[in-house]
Amino acid sequence: MSLTVVGSIAFDSVKTPFGERERMLGGSAVHFSLAASFFTEVRVVGPVGSDFGEEQFAVLSDREIVTDDIERVEGGETFFWRGHYDFDLNTAHTDETRLNVFGDFQPKLSSGSREAGMLFLANIQPDLQREVRAQCDGARFSALDSMNLWIDTARDSLLAAIGDVDCVIINDAEIRQLTGEPNLARAARAVMELGPRAVVAKQGEYGAALFTAAGYFALPGFPLEDVRDPTGAGDSFAGGFLGYLDGHEGGLDDAALRRAMGYGTVLASYNVEEFGTERVTRLSREEIDSRFEALRAMTQFDALPA
Amino acid sequence: MSLTVVGSIAFDSVKTPFGERERMLGGSAVHFSLAASFFTEVRVVGPVGSDFGEEQFAVLSDREIVTDDIERVEGGETFFWRGHYDFDLNTAHTDETRLNVFGDFQPKLSSGSREAGMLFLANIQPDLQREVRAQCDGARFSALDSMNLWIDTARDSLLAAIGDVDCVIINDAEIRQLTGEPNLARAARAVMELGPRAVVAKQGEYGAALFTAAGYFALPGFPLEDVRDPTGAGDSFAGGFLGYLDGHEGGLDDAALRRAMGYGTVLASYNVEEFGTERVTRLSREEIDSRFEALRAMTQFDALPA
Repeated sequence: MSLTVVGSIAFDSVKTPFGERERMLGGSAVHFSLAASFFTEVRVVGPVGSDFGEEQFAVLSDREIVTDDIERVEGGETFFWRGHYDFDLNTAHTDETRLNVFGDFQPKLSSGSREAGMLFLANIQPDLQREVRAQCDGARFSALDSMNLWIDTARDSLLAAIGDVDCVIINDAEIRQLTGEPNLARAARAVMELGPRAVVAKQGEYGAALFTAAGYFALPGFPLEDVRDPTGAGDSFAGGFLGYLDGHEGGLDDAALRRAMGYGTVLASYNVEEFGTERVTRLSREEIDSRFEALRAMTQFDALPA
Repeated sequence: MSLTVVGSIAFDSVKTPFGERERMLGGSAVHFSLAASFFTEVRVVGPVGSDFGEEQFAVLSDREIVTDDIERVEGGETFFWRGHYDFDLNTAHTDETRLNVFGDFQPKLSSGSREAGMLFLANIQPDLQREVRAQCDGARFSALDSMNLWIDTARDSLLAAIGDVDCVIINDAEIRQLTGEPNLARAARAVMELGPRAVVAKQGEYGAALFTAAGYFALPGFPLEDVRDPTGAGDSFAGGFLGYLDGHEGGLDDAALRRAMGYGTVLASYNVEEFGTERVTRLSREEIDSRFEALRAMTQFDALPA
C-alpha cells in the first residue's frame, strides 16, 4: 500500500501567543506526509530550493517517507511563509509569502508515485491538481484540499478538479463560499453532486464533519489545554485520514471513513500541541491509538433503555 | 418530579432570510418550558403584561406547563424583542428591546415552585438568580444561563451566582469572556473551580460540549438543511437537557448528563426548524426519541480491532 501527496514544502516562520520559531520545516505536503507515515508508505512530491538540505530531508526519511520525487531546484529558494496568530488561534494572519520555486512548480511523478493506490492533492493550483490526478488514474481513492484563493481566481478549474476526485477535505467556510450555499448540509450535498462520494468539512477547533451518500458523521476537535501553533493542523488531519484509509485492512466503507475521521482528528491534535513538526516527529503509533480511544470515549453515549 | 424555570416571557418579532413573524410568543422561560415539558412537570416563573392573554397562556397549558407563577402586571406590557438574522444564523442582530414589565421583575415563587427538585435560572440579572436560588435551596440540581451584558456590568454578582449552582450552560464565547481564558478547556475548568460540577459550552451550529470532573463529552449540532429561526435554540437546549435529567429514572451521573446533552441537542434542532415556538408546540415524544437515536448514529464509531 502506498499514498502519494503533491503539495507545498516550505519554511515557516510563525509567532503565536505561546512563542515563535524561524524557518521551521513546513508546508502542506510535509505536514500531511508526517501524519500519514504512521499508517502507510508515503511518497511526497513537491519542489524545494538549494536552501533545503540534509537536515530537512532527514526529518522525512526518518519517518521512512519516500523523497525521490522532491524536486530540488539548484539556485532556487524554497517556498517561505511568515505568519502569526493572536489568541483566536482559528485565524492565521499572513505577514509574508514568497512562493520562490513553488511559483513555477510543474509536478513530475515517478512511476512509483504514479502507481500509488491513494492520492492526496494538497492545496495547489487546481489545474496542477487535475494534471496530477490524470497521471495517477489508477488510484483507488483520491482526495483534494483547496482554499479561498482558488475559489476566487480559478473557480471553474477547481470545480473540474473536484469532479475528478473521490473526496474533498476543506474548511467549512470554503465549502459555503464554493457553493454559495450558507447551509453546510446543503453545501456538502452540492459538492457531492459534482462527483465526490465524500466531503469532509474541517471546522477548526470545533472538529470536522463527514458527509456521504449514507449520511452524516461528526467529531469534535480533541480538547487540549495547550495549543501552541495551529499551522498544519488541516494537513495533519488529511494525513491521518488518508493514511489510515490506505494502511488499514479492509474496504473504504462508511465505518472505515468514520475511523479515518478519528485518526485525522488525533493527528491534528498532536500537530497543534507544539510548533511546526516538533510534536509529530517524536510521536508513536501507541500514542496515536491511545488518543483515538480517548476520543471515542469522549463522543459515545448510551442508547435509551428499551 | 418537577422543574422550575425563572426567566423572560416575551413577544418576539423576528426576520430571517427565510421569512418573518410579528409578536410571536417567545422568551427564555417559554422556550425552556416547552422543551422541558416533554419530560417532566414544568413550573414557569416570569412577568407578563396586560397584552399577554388567553391565547398565550394556552400555548403553555396545552403542554401541561404550570403557569400559576406567571405574574400578570395589569396595565403593563410584556417584554418585547425585535431582531433579525442574516445568512450567518449564528449571530442575532437586535433592532429593538423593550424590557417593559421585565425591567421591574422581582421573582415571587409559590411553595410549589420553591419545592421543585430542579431549577433553571435563565438569563436574568445575576442578583435575581441568587435570590431565586436561595428560595429553592432544596433543589437536587440547579443550573443557570447568562450573557455578555452581565459579565460586563455585574461580574461579581454573576460569579457568586455561578458558585451557587451545580451546572452552568452558556455560550463558549461567554465562558472565554467570563474567565479571560481563550482556551475553552481551561476556561471550563476555571468555571468549575467556582463551584459547579458541570459546564455546558453551547457552540451554536457546531453543537455543545460538556465538562465535568470525570472528563469531556461533545456533540455536534444536529445537521439540518432547513434552519429558519435560531431564536430560542439555547433555551430549548437547556430545556431538553434539564427536562431529561429531571424526568428520567436514575441518577445524575455522567452517563445521564451525556444523554441529556443528546436531548438538549434534539430539542434545539427542532426549535430552529421553524419560527418561534411553531415546531416545538406540535412535536411528539416519539419524534424526539427518533431524532435522539439518529444523533447517536451520527456520532458513533467503532473501536479498532483488538
